Amino acid sequence: MLENNRTKTKDPIYLDNASSSPIDIDVINEMLPFLTGNYGNPSSLHDLGRKSTIAVSNARFRISKLIGSKYNEIYFTSGGTESNNLALIGCARMLNKINPSCKRILISKIEHDSIIETVNFIEKDLKFEIDYLPIKKDGLIDLDTFSEMVSPKTSLISIMLANNEIGTIQPIKALVEIAKAKNENTIFHSDAVQALGKIPINVNDLKIDMMTISSHKINGPKGIGALFIKQGLHIKPIIFGGGQELNLRSGTENVCAIVGFGKACEIWKEKLESVQTEIKRLQRYMIDRIVNEVPGSALNGSMENRISNNVNFSFAGINGEDLLIKLDEYGIEASTGSACSSNKKQKASHVLKALGLSYDQVRGSIRFSIGHQNTQEELKNAIDTLKNLIKEFRKINGVVLRE
Amino acid sequence: MLENNRTKTKDPIYLDNASSSPIDIDVINEMLPFLTGNYGNPSSLHDLGRKSTIAVSNARFRISKLIGSKYNEIYFTSGGTESNNLALIGCARMLNKINPSCKRILISKIEHDSIIETVNFIEKDLKFEIDYLPIKKDGLIDLDTFSEMVSPKTSLISIMLANNEIGTIQPIKALVEIAKAKNENTIFHSDAVQALGKIPINVNDLKIDMMTISSHKINGPKGIGALFIKQGLHIKPIIFGGGQELNLRSGTENVCAIVGFGKACEIWKEKLESVQTEIKRLQRYMIDRIVNEVPGSALNGSMENRISNNVNFSFAGINGEDLLIKLDEYGIEASTGSACSSNKKQKASHVLKALGLSYDQVRGSIRFSIGHQNTQEELKNAIDTLKNLIKEFRKINGVVLRE
Ligand SMILES: Cc1ncc(COP(=O)(O)O)c(C=O)c1O
Ligand SMILES: Cc1ncc(COP(=O)(O)O)c(C=O)c1O
Repeated sequence: MLENNRTKTKDPIYLDNASSSPIDIDVINEMLPFLTGNYGNPSSLHDLGRKSTIAVSNARFRISKLIGSKYNEIYFTSGGTESNNLALIGCARMLNKINPSCKRILISKIEHDSIIETVNFIEKDLKFEIDYLPIKKDGLIDLDTFSEMVSPKTSLISIMLANNEIGTIQPIKALVEIAKAKNENTIFHSDAVQALGKIPINVNDLKIDMMTISSHKINGPKGIGALFIKQGLHIKPIIFGGGQELNLRSGTENVCAIVGFGKACEIWKEKLESVQTEIKRLQRYMIDRIVNEVPGSALNGSMENRISNNVNFSFAGINGEDLLIKLDEYGIEASTGSACSSNKKQKASHVLKALGLSYDQVRGSIRFSIGHQNTQEELKNAIDTLKNLIKEFRKINGVVLRE
Repeated sequence: MLENNRTKTKDPIYLDNASSSPIDIDVINEMLPFLTGNYGNPSSLHDLGRKSTIAVSNARFRISKLIGSKYNEIYFTSGGTESNNLALIGCARMLNKINPSCKRILISKIEHDSIIETVNFIEKDLKFEIDYLPIKKDGLIDLDTFSEMVSPKTSLISIMLANNEIGTIQPIKALVEIAKAKNENTIFHSDAVQALGKIPINVNDLKIDMMTISSHKINGPKGIGALFIKQGLHIKPIIFGGGQELNLRSGTENVCAIVGFGKACEIWKEKLESVQTEIKRLQRYMIDRIVNEVPGSALNGSMENRISNNVNFSFAGINGEDLLIKLDEYGIEASTGSACSSNKKQKASHVLKALGLSYDQVRGSIRFSIGHQNTQEELKNAIDTLKNLIKEFRKINGVVLRE
């Protein structure tokens, strides 16, 4: 049994929980037996194999409870990225066979790279047409625009439930209704990686066909995710082999991580409302103070339709990356836009650009994402430091703000 | 710090290490900080992110040392299955672009399902032709047959280094020489999942272009593997997104598992020779006793070219699955053929069939795979029980062996 020792005062103030989050101690303790003793391969016909099979089933059950799906609608993958790839490529390959005349995919302009790069591939290699839905200034999708863009040929739609950079929550239920009214066979996928554990999710209520979730964003381990696929929908695999996950995702199951993911879902199922109310309070505190105390600051995204952990600002006359590095020196860990993209650190955020922000506003942006381990004291210190650093940077660079 | 308590006398006798292996205590201890404290996303520009980046680099380095590759020739994936998929599909997609007139793949008949099912996909969807190389009675590839089967159109070859069911070690170096002499542009991949940690491997000596390895077969964690890709070879990705692993494998890195995989490789690099000598002694002990004391037993595969952990027998008049279940009741955990294939428990082994075994011989087969934690005492008990059970089964079923 391990105990939590993450509250040492000298720890950095970690405000990058949307990039990856600390694993809950209860999650770790549930994983430990699968590191130390229960090492069976679920495919093995013996006692240790069965223990692993049962553990995987149990996790599948817990995850289904958090999203209101059936137990057997959950398919494990190596993470949110793979789930998004499986959903889109697997569905496109299926559509290619059953309905080759309708090869049109609609996604929003603010999807995660694992959606955007995947549809790029599908466009080139599987010869689909891709439509990109614009968003409004507040990051939300306009229902009329959406309705116009859904064509009778649109066979697959992928719109994220909550955005990773600006935290905007899209009206998925309404979008699904519009899409299905136009074409009842259209398949609707949603990337819910950033929404899981933040807002209540019920896949039946949303009426979506597929949904992507990932463990390491909800205080579970990295390297494990899942795809919800509505019963009766038979997409094609993208990884082939031994036939695990009902032949949809081959490869020896990552039992230990699956167990951790399951526990993390169980924990969030129990405490989502109470903990998110508290995180929302901290978010409000942080946003209010920055708006009031940092001149030339502008909140990106919608205030109303926003997940509780996200705080994203543009600061006039500031280079976000420089600010980030300086904050890090002071032990405050945040991010510019999406930390989920590697080797692209210089690439300006496509999400902020889609909001209509100027180059300077995009460059001057920074994202704080709050976790349930953060305290108001930590936020207070972070905001105080932020204020001073921005003042200093502006002084050094001779930035004068106009009213 | 955790301590090893796996030597309790009541533990089952685990002889299924080729399916999945216990994680070494030193590996677990190296992983723990990445479960409890170092949860940064390697893509993040702050201290915790950097710690993860460094840990991933360090693991990459350790893995490269075990296979004699360059540091930057190691690409992480979610396991052996994904590595095999990436190697073959990624290469086929590349070939489709650069050399669409040579679309022929050669694999052996005894490859793992993650190779066989993947070339099935490539055949159907990417329109390649697949050639299947037969093997000799001892499970080895005949060099002349191989030479005949390599055509000038063969652009990709995949032959496993060691087989998972019968442990046969193929003469990869000679095969590569023959193939490259026929066509220097042919790309040679080898699935070394079962060979890693069992025999010394040097990718430069073998002159292969790609090689698959997996962590959970060498006392590392599940859900992590790697693909060695020779510098200069630019295969295409199969999972798209944030651009991790030099754009070849997107998705947040499974840092904790990567660290464990790295440590497991470091350990095997140090002790491979000494430990494998001891395991070979145990293997010899087990094989000799079964051959001498169990009538109607036949060793499958080659005795000389065999990895040290593999013991695979056919027992006349026995149903391997029944035997397995009974052994399990006695606390002895083994496997019929490949445990790495799910939902296919009734499928007869394609490997044993390729050896030319009869239906009854295939059905009567069982695989024991020894790990470094096994003792001679355990093997003694397992063999004694095996002898009795076989005698009993034959008595019940009225099986009479002819001389
Ligand atoms: C919205 C969104 N989708 C997908 C992903 C990818 O998930 P993973 O890191 O598990 O690959 C992320 C984060 O990286 C994300 O924020
Ligand atoms: C020879 C061989 N290749 C590939 C694999 C697949 O590796 P993984 O279990 O890591 O997906 C296995 C075992 O499952 C194997 O034995």
